[in-house]
Order: sequence, then structure tokens, then C-alpha cells
Amino acid sequence: MTATIGYLGPKGTFTKLAVDKTFNGEVKHSYSTIPACIDAVNNGEINIGVVPLENAIEGTVQLTVDYLVHQVRLPIMAEIVVPIQQHLLVHTSFTGKMADIKEVHSHSHAIAQCHQYIHQHLPNATLHFTSSTGKAAELISERKGEPVAAIGNQLAANIYRLHTIQKNIHDFPNNHTRFIVLSKQQELVKIAHPVQSEKTTLLITLPSDFAGALHQVLSAFAWRKMNLSKIESRPMKTGLGNYFFIIDVNQPYDEVLFPGVKAELEALGCQVTVLGTYPVYQLDHL
Amino acid sequence: MTATIGYLGPKGTFTKLAVDKTFNGEVKHSYSTIPACIDAVNNGEINIGVVPLENAIEGTVQLTVDYLVHQVRLPIMAEIVVPIQQHLLVHTSFTGKMADIKEVHSHSHAIAQCHQYIHQHLPNATLHFTSSTGKAAELISERKGEPVAAIGNQLAANIYRLHTIQKNIHDFPNNHTRFIVLSKQQELVKIAHPVQSEKTTLLITLPSDFAGALHQVLSAFAWRKMNLSKIESRPMKTGLGNYFFIIDVNQPYDEVLFPGVKAELEALGCQVTVLGTYPVYQLDHL
Repeated sequence: MTATIGYLGPKGTFTKLAVDKTFNGEVKHSYSTIPACIDAVNNGEINIGVVPLENAIEGTVQLTVDYLVHQVRLPIMAEIVVPIQQHLLVHTSFTGKMADIKEVHSHSHAIAQCHQYIHQHLPNATLHFTSSTGKAAELISERKGEPVAAIGNQLAANIYRLHTIQKNIHDFPNNHTRFIVLSKQQELVKIAHPVQSEKTTLLITLPSDFAGALHQVLSAFAWRKMNLSKIESRPMKTGLGNYFFIIDVNQPYDEVLFPGVKAELEALGCQVTVLGTYPVYQLDHL
Repeated sequence: MTATIGYLGPKGTFTKLAVDKTFNGEVKHSYSTIPACIDAVNNGEINIGVVPLENAIEGTVQLTVDYLVHQVRLPIMAEIVVPIQQHLLVHTSFTGKMADIKEVHSHSHAIAQCHQYIHQHLPNATLHFTSSTGKAAELISERKGEPVAAIGNQLAANIYRLHTIQKNIHDFPNNHTRFIVLSKQQELVKIAHPVQSEKTTLLITLPSDFAGALHQVLSAFAWRKMNLSKIESRPMKTGLGNYFFIIDVNQPYDEVLFPGVKAELEALGCQVTVLGTYPVYQLDHL
């Protein structure tokens, strides 16, 4: 059986780039929103869904986390980490210099990520916002001979046959974006890259808002020397003043430490849900 | 002197709506990206900047926080919390029923926030993505007599003279968005609303990644019974494995408790920076 993979589209986005680099041979379907992709996995329409978890361009942590927490609980099967690399793309017919460029098109967050570069090297260009970086590349591909550019990734350059006039124009060199792979069928999730580390993501809700509650929660991990790589509080949607926490623990779920943490936290009145225990894959280049 | 306020535009966005409801009489300038708005405050081009801090549509926590932490340190003078209310908007010439609507236009995150509503009430509509909710409203205003709709807020409906065919179509009733007011000139920040609470935001960097480091940091707050309303870890841009924390403490900076926390954490090798101690304004309706 060939697995089907859904991803947050359209084509030419970082999500598509990550899916193409990670999976081979599966049938791929594009979805236009994060909830639509998650629903499709839940309904059995597709086997695997890939959505951004931390990515300032194609999605937000909040939307993915909130939908998983409040609407559809699907296990996280893997995490894919990729560097964000933004390039300046022009039509192949463009023969001018960088300073000649009059318009720069991209998603507003991609433009923001290249803010200082644009300020220094493209001071005469006006900024134009598109719904995605892929859309910007498409637009530039239709403007032969004009001094206009898009900001986007290598995949967008390839799809729309654009010339990369300058590589890596993003202001911060160590920007990464994280994707999660959701599925109910672990046996179908086949990733050929080496596993970089293993992680467990927990959802913890506190019984009430009180001084030191989080401190007590962290004690359960600290005295076991379980290292956390991420912690984030998010308000519950039920009203103001109620919070849940998403905690990433840098080790796989086991039969001793994690059940111990869970029992202690439940005794304190917390609810503990395992959102996934899964391998992390780091892609160095795209 | 009349203060000048910069905000993340374009017109018809939630940021503009929040600025209009919060400030009166000041001169207002729209900026197209978060870094451009923050730079303008830093350069003295404007007196006050308003940017989203937690908002799935017009910006991300990450972009604002990263720019403030890594590039331009400006004090936070106030926080504005507003409910997210999405409406279904049509041209005033539209006389059909909801089920007749063939196209829905909006920012992908706004469409995602109304995912279940669209699924139930607009099953025949195709989805079209725009760079902002304001842009979607503008587009619909130009399509007289056609069965097309935009998702956006009341301000967008007013500016583009659209008819609100259905109010509050967002799936989660308790979604809020938070904006921060940045300025070097406290005396110019005049907000007429009642203060809901006071808050202090700290940036804490850990000396290294070790089990229990965050637990130790939180001890300093816990034994003083200082309540935290938000905690978020973010990777430093200097490489993998280094983190900083943004912590919101539910009380104003004082001369005893905060200096005590700071001294203890510095003794542990942490760096502590006060990003702001400021009032919170909650707007109930827009």
C-alpha cells in the first residue's frame, strides 16, 4: 500500500520542501489550511499529515497546537527541523543590477525576515505582499523583462524557473522551522534520514492559577534530571486566567520516569496528556 | 506636541482597530512589517509603535520578540488585549443566501480560524487567500453583484462599505490578540481606558542547557509567591541548544522583590533584562 501524505500548501512553500526532502514514493496532497490537513488525517482521507509547528511564515505554533489540543488529538510521529533560507529571485530575462530592482514581492513575514538586507541593498524597491512565498515567485515568473524580484526558497525558484540573484538574504543565520508529522498509522511513517534525537511532548493543564504551580510541575522533571528543550504556556480557550503548558522532554517515553512524573502531577491535580514520543530529523540543507 | 503612532498596517487590520480604539488625537502612520515599525520608533521617526505580540493573523510572537531581543531594545509601555471577532462580509448588492456564496477570500489564518463554520455553512465555496483580511475586504468591494464573501473584522466592513451577512463566525469564542505599545517617551503614551492589571516582562538567558535550570529560575519567583502569567522558551539565534525565556510576572516592578530575583538569578549565571513594567488594557468589544 502506498501511503498518502497531506501537507500545508501551496506548492513552493517550506512545508512542501520539507515533505519532498523527507518522504519518497508516497502520494502527496496539498491542503490550504492547517485545520483542513489535520482533519484529513483524522477522517482517514490521508495517512500522514505534515504541518508547521514553529514557522513564522506558513503557520504559527498557536494554530497547530490549539487545533491539536482542542479539536483533534492525533499522535505526533516525528519532527522535522529545517533551516530557513530565503533567496532573492528574479525572472531569467532580468539582466540589471540589484540596485535596479523596483519591486520586491513576498509574504510579509518573509520580507520581515530580510528586513535589514532589503534596507541595505534594495533601498529603492517598494514592498508588495502576497499570501505565500510560492505565490510571489509565481507572480514574478509572469513579469518577463521587468525589474521586479520575489523572496522565496529554492523550490519556488525551481518550480517557477526563476534566477537566484542572491542566496541567503535572511537577517538571522540560525533560523529554523519545525514541522510535525501526524498519523494514526506508525508503520506507514518511513523517514530515511538518520534520527538526530528523541523527544516526548506533553500537554499539562494546571488545576488553577496559583503562585508556584509551574514550579511544582517542573520539580517532577528536575529531580529526575529529565531535560526540557521547550516550555510554553498557552491560555485555555475556556476563559481568561486558565493555562495549559506544552513541554518538550529530551528523551523517549519510558516505563519508569514518565509514569512517575505523571502520577506525581496527577496527585497535584494536573492533567497530563502525551501528545507524542518521537524521533527528530534535522535537515541541514534544502 | 502631537505624538505620532506607528502601527502594523495595512488599513482594516486588527492592529489598526486596536490603535483606533486605544488612542485619540495622535497622528497615525502605517508600517508594512513589524521590524520597520520597531525601527521607526528607535530612530525617532515616530514616538510610539504598536505591534502584535500574540496574534495568529497579522504577526507572530516570534518575530516581534526576536526583533526586540536581538536587534532593537525598546521598553514596553503598555499591553492591549482585544477579542478576535471574525465576520462574514459581502458586497451590499449581494441579495442571495449564505449557501449561494461561491468564493470566500481572506488571510489563510483567518480562514483557518473559521474552519468549522465554513465546513458547515459554506460547503460550496472555494477558498482564496490574501495577504491580509483588509485586502480580502477590498477585493470583495470591487466585485459588485457576485456571490463572493470576505472574512474580516468590523473595521474592514466599515472602510470598504461591506454588509456583514453573519457576525462572529470564528470557531473559538475566547480568542484574544495582544499588542504591545513601544516607546522611549512614557509621557506621550496616553491611554484613556481603565487599567486592568499591571505586568512585568523579563528576558532571562540561562548560562547553559542543564537539567533543572528552568526549575531553579522559577524557584526565585515561587518562594516569593510572585505569580507568572506566561512563560515561553525561545532558541537563541547563536546556534542550537541555547535558550532564553520570556516570563510575564503579574505585578509591577518594585524595589524589593524584583531586585532580589535578579540578584539570585545572576548569582546562578543567568542574565536578566527587564523588557518592561506596564499596564494592561483589555478592550471588550471592537
